[in-house]
Amino acid sequence: MSHGLMPNVVAEGTRLTLAPVARGLHRFGISANAVTVVGVLVTVAGSALLGAARPLPALVVLLAGALADTLDGQLAKVSGGGTRFGAFLDSTLDRVSDAALAAGAAALGASLGDPVLFWAALGGLVASFLVSYVRAKAESMGTTATVGLMPREARLTILLIGIGVWGVFEVYPLVVAAFAAVALLSVITLFQRIAFVARELNNRNKEGIR
Amino acid sequence: MSHGLMPNVVAEGTRLTLAPVARGLHRFGISANAVTVVGVLVTVAGSALLGAARPLPALVVLLAGALADTLDGQLAKVSGGGTRFGAFLDSTLDRVSDAALAAGAAALGASLGDPVLFWAALGGLVASFLVSYVRAKAESMGTTATVGLMPREARLTILLIGIGVWGVFEVYPLVVAAFAAVALLSVITLFQRIAFVARELNNRNKEGIR
Repeated sequence: MSHGLMPNVVAEGTRLTLAPVARGLHRFGISANAVTVVGVLVTVAGSALLGAARPLPALVVLLAGALADTLDGQLAKVSGGGTRFGAFLDSTLDRVSDAALAAGAAALGASLGDPVLFWAALGGLVASFLVSYVRAKAESMGTTATVGLMPREARLTILLIGIGVWGVFEVYPLVVAAFAAVALLSVITLFQRIAFVARELNNRNKEGIR
Repeated sequence: MSHGLMPNVVAEGTRLTLAPVARGLHRFGISANAVTVVGVLVTVAGSALLGAARPLPALVVLLAGALADTLDGQLAKVSGGGTRFGAFLDSTLDRVSDAALAAGAAALGASLGDPVLFWAALGGLVASFLVSYVRAKAESMGTTATVGLMPREARLTILLIGIGVWGVFEVYPLVVAAFAAVALLSVITLFQRIAFVARELNNRNKEGIR
């Protein structure tokens, strides 16, 4: 499956590299849900490092969290397909990870007295939450809303690049630009999804299967 | 329908008072969706006043936003039951209203240099978003998750009381306490819902209708 801005080859490469790790964890009796929960805790720690203006340690820890997030799906497959609760937990904790990273950036913006980073992080948090909520709500009403130019992998990739560039080259404006870009693109995705749902529900009304 | 901490008699009284207003708006050709959108804009303005440390104007404007939020449902009924897109838009914009109020409080906490208010507001934002997300996600998977001691009306009532007490009696700690209480109760509600979904999906797996 293509993930928008995230190149397929990177996603596929990561998956192939992690396959033996997943099999190893499975042999040790470690469940996909356990990896999901540990991954979120790692991401929260990385977000706290970002909030404390430590971009390089933050980057390393956040990358570990992102790897755990890919690994849980692999582990679920190795363990026989995963459970419905596993899928539910994974989706819910993805939202927690996104929120933690945005909260870390908002705290950084507040402590540096940078209103642009503060509002970009908060706006991005709200918009990306709504992007996920709109999809779940649409599906609960029997339609879909997977459209949008800004899937989660793309958001995370942009933010990690911004944090990395800040950490390595000490170009702070780029981390602000990354959060602002993600906020803006999330808002556009949100409007795309709402318009899509409006059309879908409207068509269904016309067909009389309301 | 009971709304937890929100007394039924208040909700019922508000509904009866607004009924003629809803009929009037309907006669002027104003749609429920238009009232929903205006209500959110009013709530965003009230949240900005809270962020600017103006509690009394904030309270008045936020109360107007809350009234509009009750009015749109009434107007939908008067207009012949409301559309599925109207229900979708109302749910989605409720999340925007909640987020705006929390963002206003977080901005206030940041500008006053009060980490307790800042983190209570951000934590409450994330937890209450997740409470709504978990329900929509559970419903998209064919189950439900309406359990929880902290419905939206109760959250809003506690926050408005906190803002009101701050504004009238100048007791700032109470607005902080209100946001902290809402954050804590939302986290408890979140765990209640996740546990409920875990049981539901687990039972369904056992019954073999996975």
